Amino acid sequence: MASMIDEIAQETALSDLIEGYFRSGFTTGNALITEAVRRMLAAGGKRLRPRVTLLAAQACGGDALHYLRLAAYMELIHVATLIHDDVVDNAATRRGINATAVDFGNRTSVLAGDYLFAWIFKNVTDGYPPPIPNVLSATLAEICDGEVLQLQALGDLSTGLDTYVEIARKKTASLFAAAAQCGAIAAGGRAEHVAALRSFGELYGIAFQMADDLLDLIADSATLGKPVGNDLVERKMTIPIILALAGGDVDFGKKTSDFFDAIRNGAPIAARTNSLIEAIDQQGGLRATRSQIAAYVERAKAALHQIGVSTARKRLESLAEALLDT
Amino acid sequence: MASMIDEIAQETALSDLIEGYFRSGFTTGNALITEAVRRMLAAGGKRLRPRVTLLAAQACGGDALHYLRLAAYMELIHVATLIHDDVVDNAATRRGINATAVDFGNRTSVLAGDYLFAWIFKNVTDGYPPPIPNVLSATLAEICDGEVLQLQALGDLSTGLDTYVEIARKKTASLFAAAAQCGAIAAGGRAEHVAALRSFGELYGIAFQMADDLLDLIADSATLGKPVGNDLVERKMTIPIILALAGGDVDFGKKTSDFFDAIRNGAPIAARTNSLIEAIDQQGGLRATRSQIAAYVERAKAALHQIGVSTARKRLESLAEALLDT
Repeated sequence: MASMIDEIAQETALSDLIEGYFRSGFTTGNALITEAVRRMLAAGGKRLRPRVTLLAAQACGGDALHYLRLAAYMELIHVATLIHDDVVDNAATRRGINATAVDFGNRTSVLAGDYLFAWIFKNVTDGYPPPIPNVLSATLAEICDGEVLQLQALGDLSTGLDTYVEIARKKTASLFAAAAQCGAIAAGGRAEHVAALRSFGELYGIAFQMADDLLDLIADSATLGKPVGNDLVERKMTIPIILALAGGDVDFGKKTSDFFDAIRNGAPIAARTNSLIEAIDQQGGLRATRSQIAAYVERAKAALHQIGVSTARKRLESLAEALLDT
Repeated sequence: MASMIDEIAQETALSDLIEGYFRSGFTTGNALITEAVRRMLAAGGKRLRPRVTLLAAQACGGDALHYLRLAAYMELIHVATLIHDDVVDNAATRRGINATAVDFGNRTSVLAGDYLFAWIFKNVTDGYPPPIPNVLSATLAEICDGEVLQLQALGDLSTGLDTYVEIARKKTASLFAAAAQCGAIAAGGRAEHVAALRSFGELYGIAFQMADDLLDLIADSATLGKPVGNDLVERKMTIPIILALAGGDVDFGKKTSDFFDAIRNGAPIAARTNSLIEAIDQQGGLRATRSQIAAYVERAKAALHQIGVSTARKRLESLAEALLDT
């Protein structure tokens, strides 16, 4: 009981440390950009990436307090990619509304994201030993590479699970892998522990993306902050649809390609979206996705076997297990 | 005579080296992005930034051949900012034409620029000693900061010469300064020579931006690759208009603010643009700009006084003097 209270206290302390840093420790040299980033941070987010960094540092015997800035950079890389995603993805809402205001937003968004990337690298190359700066820049290249691959696969019904995993590994898991790796390196972890924690981050990140795909189909729009089935409307080849298509049902294949055609032709799709989600479920796409999530969660936990038992390791395992509730 | 032929031969050799690297030595891990960057490089450009890096290295006794990759990164940082500028600045041409194609362009452009920045930092953090990685990331932050300041000053008639120089220093001159500094550092230059070459790059870069502003008003559209007066149409506070306004002529001030209002209201502006350029000239804005360019070119050359006389130093001086022909 005492240990459980300790754990809750520690967990809260970790969150408080991260939020405290963002509230008072974070500032950049550009007022407009600082404000834009602060607003984005205030809008929410579970701070999973900095949490992974701090837990990885703790798992290697480090004191979380010493790695707050490094942990914050992981969230800020994520925030910068979100800022750029808004430019990338808001084509539909951009059309037909006040173009000047929205274009001003676009201009500022591109610059704010660029500035944030540069500001992070400026700080990391100044205060952190190799290979941390190299890991983080290589990670950003992987994220972009993954997003380009995702763009190229939009609406491509022949996309298989291997391609899906490659894209998820690059666009999402690479940052979780780097978050764990950098926390472990900074805390002076042994090479094999650094590798184990990186491996955990990568496998967790893949499971996380799969759970995110699943949520897009099953959560309510208030929880999501966007319409249910938004990924389908963007013609993203998410894992539930890939696994549903893998069943080879001809009618379902036709229904899916008709749906994507309707989107390309600008047809109304709200009712069709719900119908497609039902069909994905009927084809076993949701159940099969849950199996994949469970498999990656197991692999993520197994990657931690070689590091010693500790509260931090247990908490990393709990993070992974939480994905099973999706 | 022999020395002049030598010089021309050396100049050609330098250009050939740079182009050769881009033609055959340049590749990234993403085929689409490599292709996009190659196409941008093939479209032209004077490769001034890599040239400054190689000349700075030579001025410190280095062999240009050893610094080709580093020099290429200076051009690639420039190319990445241009790729993002296209997203930032093409609001006008984006509206009213095939939105899917253009939005696909936007998506890919944001990702391609991000990838290129990340790829450069990944390489620089792997192969180059401190402080080169830090200089380059700090430079990118400065460029973005300068562009945000420029956005904030759009159409603001109270913008003074000091603010103009601050923006030009950040958005343009910082990369020339870094190009010279990194070439000098890589070649093992003494600290005072590194500082002198960085200073040259910064002063040259400010003069370069002023000459670029001037060209926007006086060159023909074929040379520019965009309409004459495009900066005015974008409501940029360029140096000719700032210096023309500094004369305090009330009618000219009114004409300028009417012009910016007309743009905001979407009025046709081709005839008005030519009339405004004439008025800027009548207010002495073009002549005063040429004086400022000459002053910065002199300061740039003076910054080189403390490094020994060499072919490389002479060639840097010639680069600066070429701006006087604008």
